Amino acid sequence: MNEITLLLQCDDLIRQALREDITNEDVSTNAVMPRSQLGQVQLICKQDGIIAGLSVFARTFHLLDASTQVSFACQDGDLVKRGQVMATITGDVRVLLSGERVALNYLQRMSGIATYTRDMVHILEGSRTTLLDTRKTTPNNRIFEKYAVKVGGGSNHRYNLSDGVMLKDNHIAAAGGIKDAVAMARAYAPFVRKIEVETETLDQVKEAVEAGADIIMLDNMSIKQMEKAMIIIDGKAQTECSGNVTRENLKRLADLGVDFVSSGALTHSAPILDISMKNLEIISNRSI
Amino acid sequence: MNEITLLLQCDDLIRQALREDITNEDVSTNAVMPRSQLGQVQLICKQDGIIAGLSVFARTFHLLDASTQVSFACQDGDLVKRGQVMATITGDVRVLLSGERVALNYLQRMSGIATYTRDMVHILEGSRTTLLDTRKTTPNNRIFEKYAVKVGGGSNHRYNLSDGVMLKDNHIAAAGGIKDAVAMARAYAPFVRKIEVETETLDQVKEAVEAGADIIMLDNMSIKQMEKAMIIIDGKAQTECSGNVTRENLKRLADLGVDFVSSGALTHSAPILDISMKNLEIISNRSI
Amino acid sequence: MNEITLLLQCDDLIRQALREDITNEDVSTNAVMPRSQLGQVQLICKQDGIIAGLSVFARTFHLLDASTQVSFACQDGDLVKRGQVMATITGDVRVLLSGERVALNYLQRMSGIATYTRDMVHILEGSRTTLLDTRKTTPNNRIFEKYAVKVGGGSNHRYNLSDGVMLKDNHIAAAGGIKDAVAMARAYAPFVRKIEVETETLDQVKEAVEAGADIIMLDNMSIKQMEKAMIIIDGKAQTECSGNVTRENLKRLADLGVDFVSSGALTHSAPILDISMKNLEIISNRSI
Amino acid sequence: MNEITLLLQCDDLIRQALREDITNEDVSTNAVMPRSQLGQVQLICKQDGIIAGLSVFARTFHLLDASTQVSFACQDGDLVKRGQVMATITGDVRVLLSGERVALNYLQRMSGIATYTRDMVHILEGSRTTLLDTRKTTPNNRIFEKYAVKVGGGSNHRYNLSDGVMLKDNHIAAAGGIKDAVAMARAYAPFVRKIEVETETLDQVKEAVEAGADIIMLDNMSIKQMEKAMIIIDGKAQTECSGNVTRENLKRLADLGVDFVSSGALTHSAPILDISMKNLEIISNRSI
Amino acid sequence: MNEITLLLQCDDLIRQALREDITNEDVSTNAVMPRSQLGQVQLICKQDGIIAGLSVFARTFHLLDASTQVSFACQDGDLVKRGQVMATITGDVRVLLSGERVALNYLQRMSGIATYTRDMVHILEGSRTTLLDTRKTTPNNRIFEKYAVKVGGGSNHRYNLSDGVMLKDNHIAAAGGIKDAVAMARAYAPFVRKIEVETETLDQVKEAVEAGADIIMLDNMSIKQMEKAMIIIDGKAQTECSGNVTRENLKRLADLGVDFVSSGALTHSAPILDISMKNLEIISNRSI
Amino acid sequence: MNEITLLLQCDDLIRQALREDITNEDVSTNAVMPRSQLGQVQLICKQDGIIAGLSVFARTFHLLDASTQVSFACQDGDLVKRGQVMATITGDVRVLLSGERVALNYLQRMSGIATYTRDMVHILEGSRTTLLDTRKTTPNNRIFEKYAVKVGGGSNHRYNLSDGVMLKDNHIAAAGGIKDAVAMARAYAPFVRKIEVETETLDQVKEAVEAGADIIMLDNMSIKQMEKAMIIIDGKAQTECSGNVTRENLKRLADLGVDFVSSGALTHSAPILDISMKNLEIISNRSI
Repeated sequence: MNEITLLLQCDDLIRQALREDITNEDVSTNAVMPRSQLGQVQLICKQDGIIAGLSVFARTFHLLDASTQVSFACQDGDLVKRGQVMATITGDVRVLLSGERVALNYLQRMSGIATYTRDMVHILEGSRTTLLDTRKTTPNNRIFEKYAVKVGGGSNHRYNLSDGVMLKDNHIAAAGGIKDAVAMARAYAPFVRKIEVETETLDQVKEAVEAGADIIMLDNMSIKQMEKAMIIIDGKAQTECSGNVTRENLKRLADLGVDFVSSGALTHSAPILDISMKNLEIISNRSI
Repeated sequence: MNEITLLLQCDDLIRQALREDITNEDVSTNAVMPRSQLGQVQLICKQDGIIAGLSVFARTFHLLDASTQVSFACQDGDLVKRGQVMATITGDVRVLLSGERVALNYLQRMSGIATYTRDMVHILEGSRTTLLDTRKTTPNNRIFEKYAVKVGGGSNHRYNLSDGVMLKDNHIAAAGGIKDAVAMARAYAPFVRKIEVETETLDQVKEAVEAGADIIMLDNMSIKQMEKAMIIIDGKAQTECSGNVTRENLKRLADLGVDFVSSGALTHSAPILDISMKNLEIISNRSI
Repeated sequence: MNEITLLLQCDDLIRQALREDITNEDVSTNAVMPRSQLGQVQLICKQDGIIAGLSVFARTFHLLDASTQVSFACQDGDLVKRGQVMATITGDVRVLLSGERVALNYLQRMSGIATYTRDMVHILEGSRTTLLDTRKTTPNNRIFEKYAVKVGGGSNHRYNLSDGVMLKDNHIAAAGGIKDAVAMARAYAPFVRKIEVETETLDQVKEAVEAGADIIMLDNMSIKQMEKAMIIIDGKAQTECSGNVTRENLKRLADLGVDFVSSGALTHSAPILDISMKNLEIISNRSI
Repeated sequence: MNEITLLLQCDDLIRQALREDITNEDVSTNAVMPRSQLGQVQLICKQDGIIAGLSVFARTFHLLDASTQVSFACQDGDLVKRGQVMATITGDVRVLLSGERVALNYLQRMSGIATYTRDMVHILEGSRTTLLDTRKTTPNNRIFEKYAVKVGGGSNHRYNLSDGVMLKDNHIAAAGGIKDAVAMARAYAPFVRKIEVETETLDQVKEAVEAGADIIMLDNMSIKQMEKAMIIIDGKAQTECSGNVTRENLKRLADLGVDFVSSGALTHSAPILDISMKNLEIISNRSI
Repeated sequence: MNEITLLLQCDDLIRQALREDITNEDVSTNAVMPRSQLGQVQLICKQDGIIAGLSVFARTFHLLDASTQVSFACQDGDLVKRGQVMATITGDVRVLLSGERVALNYLQRMSGIATYTRDMVHILEGSRTTLLDTRKTTPNNRIFEKYAVKVGGGSNHRYNLSDGVMLKDNHIAAAGGIKDAVAMARAYAPFVRKIEVETETLDQVKEAVEAGADIIMLDNMSIKQMEKAMIIIDGKAQTECSGNVTRENLKRLADLGVDFVSSGALTHSAPILDISMKNLEIISNRSI
Repeated sequence: MNEITLLLQCDDLIRQALREDITNEDVSTNAVMPRSQLGQVQLICKQDGIIAGLSVFARTFHLLDASTQVSFACQDGDLVKRGQVMATITGDVRVLLSGERVALNYLQRMSGIATYTRDMVHILEGSRTTLLDTRKTTPNNRIFEKYAVKVGGGSNHRYNLSDGVMLKDNHIAAAGGIKDAVAMARAYAPFVRKIEVETETLDQVKEAVEAGADIIMLDNMSIKQMEKAMIIIDGKAQTECSGNVTRENLKRLADLGVDFVSSGALTHSAPILDISMKNLEIISNRSI
């Protein structure tokens, strides 16, 4: 993850997470370790998968103590195996203990998303279809989750409501039809944004093509409908297929030749990848 | 969820999530709806499960516009069924559209956790064992996730590192043994906190009992080992069983008679419950 | 300005500005007015121009006291004349006095930008060219300044570095050429964003067309060069002309048939529109 | 600018401005520069003027990456000439690109104010009159703008409503006359503050003198009136002249012998000084 | 306390104090009161003294629930007697319980300061000397403590380092003498600020007079020295006496005819005034 | 004080206190010291007592300038004597001057609390009774004040409403009796928390014992009553005595054999310990 992004977007969130876990002090650690001691601990993979979020993991410790050393034996996007030592962390034992849970909570979640995404991307291999995420992310974790999707080989849809135009049924109704909605959006939105229209029927697809939509989303359509939609669109707009995308039907969606398939499950339902910090050793009893 | 908790702990997080989704403006909505219109939309369940987080859902809209009306047909903890209309939301259509995603992201996640927890709790019915969550929560979502566990029928372990004492192997090593660690914790920590000791062997269990631990955690032990541990402890401390708790082995853990079983999966790997906002209607074209 | 935008993006900035002006208390007002009194004051135009930011003006008082009444006799975008009473504000006199400066600082600045923009837009009338702003805004005032440009009849370029792709010479150099830069951007950036390439020579224009850039910026070119560039581009990309745009040369740029002309001066060098609050009257001596 | 002021007052504002420009990431830069590269760029003056804000310019880059080297060839207050290389900035190219706009937005604005102020101050040379700024600053930029006025040779009036007492017509009306208003202010305000009274007629001037005002402001008076006012005051209070101060009438105001002339235009209507970052070179392709 | 001051300066501090006391939830209250109930409680004085901070007390509850009713039977500055019912608070019982401690912590502290100040002010009655506070306040409580001093009849010295000029020995040494220090301060500081010089010897007093200091502080001098200093100053500057001001020596200081005596003890060592909330009654079992 | 606690909990509060004292700049210092100079100053004890908060004192300067050197000649908990040089601080003179007041405000207050606590603890020597603090702390200073109590030899009660259960009369009334209240608390609160019940009569003490309370507080009882209460409790719960604890009656409370005595005065009414920074010397005139 880019240093500037970490600094401007992530640091405050990580610090906030640390304060969520330590509201006044880490009582257990402070009770038995009144002074700092130099220690080392290993980051161990407990399940095969794709690792993502190593810089966030390291940052958590650096935010607690800039002198903490994190030495990685892998990098984001690598396939890691159960039992593999992925990193060694060296520093004040109290920092290692107090930061452990937050650092792992981020790393496990991001790696879970990357692993699940990679699985889905494999199914699309050989096709022209790109896998997209959605805005169905965990609140206040979007920056981490969208990055994890990329590490897993997926691509990002718009980041949020401000940086992309997507006209849904309600927008269209309010504008009085697809044509008017697209025109209003083109007049209002910064011209650097493409206009996407969500469609549920073939009539809407036609209208969207005529209105000059840049992207047409086929929402919750049957395979049959989508085939017809693709013929109507015929390359005049980019196409995105959305709704109940599963491991099972993903291949068939790709066969339709749509440009994009988007899946909320990448970020909202991927189970975590099991990772732990183990084998802590005291290197030196001297205060550091 | 309690009003004071919403106000002091949740509001800032929800607002932050809204700003994550709207960094300058909701371009699509503002393009086609230059003025407010009174509208109504339904909250529909798309999957059977336990609903949790309705007050957070409503709060999201109230934070955008205090005059939004949310009328619920169910309450937290109810079993909801696919197709069920759970609520009607009435207000400025722009508020309904701009707040939808964040409101649903919270509600879906919290309900997913409650649903998964209820499943696990059912297995424990009839036993004396209580199901606990852990600190393996999504960063900056703990207040929501721990609440959802309760709605699902589970109980909460300590909230964070500040409000509970848990002595792990590293704390024990630093203190020079379980006895000393417990003594140091009792001297240091506010006396209102119970002292929990994490054990991995029967020798450690014995030591913990002798040290006067209030709670003894049996971590990653075999059923056999735990049986022996329970005999050693013999009611002199509360007991918690932790590590790789699954639907499959949960019944056997309960049969051991442990007081508590804790599971990280409740909060880190429960898939969401599918919920959507549908059937938006414009009630009045007049500005409100 | 949209209520949601005010609430999520502006309120904190306005409150911050109020705290910039009142670090502990408004000493003068508190010294002579120990109690609240109901008063009324007029908002008077002191210079002809386009008014912009009335909702921000009102919001400043509402943030100090929600019961303040602001009754407007004009709306954003109106041409206002010297001497015209644009609004009457009724409320606690202390609120009127303490909020006056911040409210006017916003309104004068936004109206100055709208007035300057309208001037420039008039010159473009009849042409197919749209006037754009830039990212050369006053720090922590972008949301207000870009809105004022729109009120003045201009359009907004990308909001910031996150929601638009603009490949400048350095990006191109880093990527090893325009073709590679465009390809990398298309692979990396969310697909909803158009790719703009900044060009300074006709060779670069050609490359940009071949690379499939969505928008080509002609930066600091002579009229002659731009004429040739337009021929090369020939409708295959949108065109933006940038650099030293003045009242004097704007007409000639429009004559070239470029789609967009962007000008930093709209936001960084427009003088304010002179506006003041006058004729304060005490309506009632009773505390409110 | 003082390091402590930068740290306590400016850093948060600069970081906020950076986040205004980068809400999730600098897409263009990250797309083509996945790794850091050491680069160098020049800060070039494009217009003659007074430079102000160099420490703010440098701070912007340091806040993104503390290892960035900024080497200046001039200092705040210097007259800089078109084409002059004012600084060289060396660091991670991504930092140079991502911070450029915010750093320049501050520097251009502050230098514009300093340049305009110096112009006005020149007119006052040889007189006993000091040029003052006002509270008509851009919201959330006062710390920068008041500093720029000083660099330009002007002086600062009170910083805000909390640190100076200025009794205007409304304060006086509320108190029941100038005498009472001054007495109330003296009783209420910390004694370290001088009491200033705003007057619009010669009667008010007399009253203010009698009330023992420390400073008397002559607001929007004609030259004739001010001459008489100066005779009435006769050194018994400091004098400030305010309202529609222009290059044209400034000399005549000074000839009156007033102590201070205040001008809002210094901060609200000075055009920026044109400055750019140019000639970026990659020094090393190796990651730094 | 002024509404605007409460809103701009106090609300965030009070909310922060509430979050200091409730990091996730009020466990005791939520355990036994799952629903709101309307209740009433009395604010009882347990010690004679001067009450100060009633608006802060009420605000604490209003910030938790705007519908809470606080009905006062006294006002800031009143002498209250042991056993006196000072207010009745009516609202959701959970709000009354959860806000009690923070509300009282403010009220007790502010009333303690007002009570102690009033005591000292009484000693000065009949003299021309005014009692001042200092910057020796409790961190992040200055706005409350300086207000309490005023309620007790004292006056405020400068609010902080930004709004008053005080030249101490180190400033004088750095400038090269009192004369230069005063000249530099006059040139640098906004002209609305008076210049105060701290002196420890009679020579310094002479220099300060000659330098034209507005205020001369006699720091830690003997009564004898101060008598001579007063003769030297002879009305040419205001005089402030500081250092180890006690109930015992205060009268003698006043007899010297100094304008001001400042005492840090007012804010840093006044014991609290004992106050409690008692006699809570449930008015209605119905949810509100 | 632990580094992690300083970083996560204290730094923001200290910075906030610095901004309370410097809202725009330290005018006096900046007027006479336009450039940095290396200086040194001593921290001198002016009153015998227990020192507490040295790391907070040092942190204040480090937050202003990380290169400041603070060399201590004592440590928290030491008995310090009038006139003793406790530390030498070396750094930019402007940092030493601008940070002095805030650093001392913390140190004096914390040392005052530690000194007062040590006094009280001495009285308990030889008894089995532990001295506790309460939640009667100064708003937004709890982390500092509770630490100071520990330095003085006292122990901490629960940190806040979230991390301890205390059932008072109102909770009991709401639940319908002590038995039900304890049962509800045990069902609701995380099991790691002990349940404390506040009692005012012997009947309540009996009920609390029967309900299985972990801790029983004897609130405002007479010595006689407490003697009887201790017999009723008979070791079945821990005991805490509270209410009007003074130097005079503390010994008698200890003689009762209660486990804990809690006193609000430790944090709300301890006078400060007088400490000052003196003997500032300029070491080098060169800028640093």
